[in-house]
Amino acid sequence: MAATTHQIPVYTEPEKFRLDHSSRRQPIIYRHVQVGNCVEKWKSPSYLLSRLEDKPVKIHEVDKEQVDRMDFRSKNFKYMTISMHSLIKKVFEVEEEKNDDKSYYLRWVGDDPRGQTKANFHVDFPKLSEDFSLDQSIFFDPDQFFSSVLRISSPGIRVWTHYDIMDNVYVQIMGSKDVIMWAPSEAFNLYLDGDKSKVVDFSDPTLLNERFPKFNQANKWVGHLEPGDVLFIPALWFHNMKALDTGVAINLFWKNLDPGLYDKNDPYGNRDLLPGAKAMRMLDNVIRQVNMLPPDYRDFYGRQLMSKLESKLLLKDE
Amino acid sequence: MAATTHQIPVYTEPEKFRLDHSSRRQPIIYRHVQVGNCVEKWKSPSYLLSRLEDKPVKIHEVDKEQVDRMDFRSKNFKYMTISMHSLIKKVFEVEEEKNDDKSYYLRWVGDDPRGQTKANFHVDFPKLSEDFSLDQSIFFDPDQFFSSVLRISSPGIRVWTHYDIMDNVYVQIMGSKDVIMWAPSEAFNLYLDGDKSKVVDFSDPTLLNERFPKFNQANKWVGHLEPGDVLFIPALWFHNMKALDTGVAINLFWKNLDPGLYDKNDPYGNRDLLPGAKAMRMLDNVIRQVNMLPPDYRDFYGRQLMSKLESKLLLKDE
Repeated sequence: MAATTHQIPVYTEPEKFRLDHSSRRQPIIYRHVQVGNCVEKWKSPSYLLSRLEDKPVKIHEVDKEQVDRMDFRSKNFKYMTISMHSLIKKVFEVEEEKNDDKSYYLRWVGDDPRGQTKANFHVDFPKLSEDFSLDQSIFFDPDQFFSSVLRISSPGIRVWTHYDIMDNVYVQIMGSKDVIMWAPSEAFNLYLDGDKSKVVDFSDPTLLNERFPKFNQANKWVGHLEPGDVLFIPALWFHNMKALDTGVAINLFWKNLDPGLYDKNDPYGNRDLLPGAKAMRMLDNVIRQVNMLPPDYRDFYGRQLMSKLESKLLLKDE
Repeated sequence: MAATTHQIPVYTEPEKFRLDHSSRRQPIIYRHVQVGNCVEKWKSPSYLLSRLEDKPVKIHEVDKEQVDRMDFRSKNFKYMTISMHSLIKKVFEVEEEKNDDKSYYLRWVGDDPRGQTKANFHVDFPKLSEDFSLDQSIFFDPDQFFSSVLRISSPGIRVWTHYDIMDNVYVQIMGSKDVIMWAPSEAFNLYLDGDKSKVVDFSDPTLLNERFPKFNQANKWVGHLEPGDVLFIPALWFHNMKALDTGVAINLFWKNLDPGLYDKNDPYGNRDLLPGAKAMRMLDNVIRQVNMLPPDYRDFYGRQLMSKLESKLLLKDE
């Protein structure tokens, strides 16, 4: 059964998001949204250097030949802390910091990633944020706000497929990106390790198919982002982004569910919801019971338990 | 993908059961086993009447036209209590009790089915049991014995597909039977309601396929029993038996696992093992957790939980 490739639908009126779009629980691209002067001004590295606080930033450094297959399991990249200004020069390939062998990726985590403070672009980079004037109330109420994350990428960077636990919009400011997304129901086909897919190298289809035969059975959604485009990433949707050139983006996360459902110790917005995490822990005790039995009985009760979960929790096919 | 039909393997040396066969966890037919004079003597209804205590027996009465599709859900049969002698006359179609419209089925449950006493052929029918001299120690130790069940069937009776929780041997004494069995791993394809399959009517393949499309994908095992044949039915294997003519059989159940794993209140030997039943109850609490979330999150965590069960409990494909 061949998988389907959907185009992520494109709209021009983000004002309709809360009324008409968010409840569909599907990705959307809003094209050419009013996001402020940033789209023009941030093209210039010298402007960015003049407006960006020169803080230490924790970045991913990866060999250029691995730029499109960063692998969180084999760790074919390094975490390094450098200065923000140094990062800007490296990513924009300013002569004094040019490095032909390495590529860079920043996912800003806030000034105090281990504390309770989440990344907040307006607080963490107040001068630069004056250029970013997207009306966030289009997407969520102020008290739902969780974090706003600055992302800066060298050309070619592909970030591994993962899901977030919160609804978020990815606002492309500079550069273009190719987006691939998969519905939460494709989880079985994506070879998960926690919230991330083990499938990171798309370059050799034959090898990919040998190692991950179910991957090509997953229906995918594809789209393309240009400066000023806003991608809605519903919670739990898997997404993979590839920067086609030097990229700057702001990613806004909000608590779309009851705030009591979220893990309070979650700087990234990707920890399991409390009832989900608790259910997984409780399942360990269920498994412990069944493990008191011989293998054929374990298999049998395992299937009975799976069948019950399927009938009680899974959405019926449309 | 077409389903496979296996022939249930046929052996002639039941003495090899405990050493070589039982651990394979697959059905076996032992042909022409020494089970005693019963094979000859019980052909005569007058002999049976002279040796069988005339106790009240709880039987299934079903219209002849429904004889091969008894349905525990629509209850197209009646439970009735009649005398053993009356049952023998009806099933053997002795003139004084002949009924052209009805068929009968006895699964003897013991003298006190609600008490702690299980069906025990030698205790419940001492005179007749003198003719049945199968050496039970071929199959199990005396302290593993659970029950020995007398089964009497009118021609054509098909008993619904179900599984038992204990290993058992089905000793055909009189008449012949067709057997269909399915491995425990086919549970998903058999449309279970508890320990029974909802698929009871095999007469119209088109209708069957419309109502139960997965049923024909299940690999099945088939066999045929004649007087003196002994069928090993491993615990959890689904089985469906059709009496081709008047049938008498003795079905021996034993506790093949640690006795502490069995439900003490189980007259039939088909109640879930205690750890299995407990796991199913504990799963209700897991489901309650996940039900605190909206439908798309329930679906997502449902799949995560299923995936964990699959990797931790299911046997890997050979």
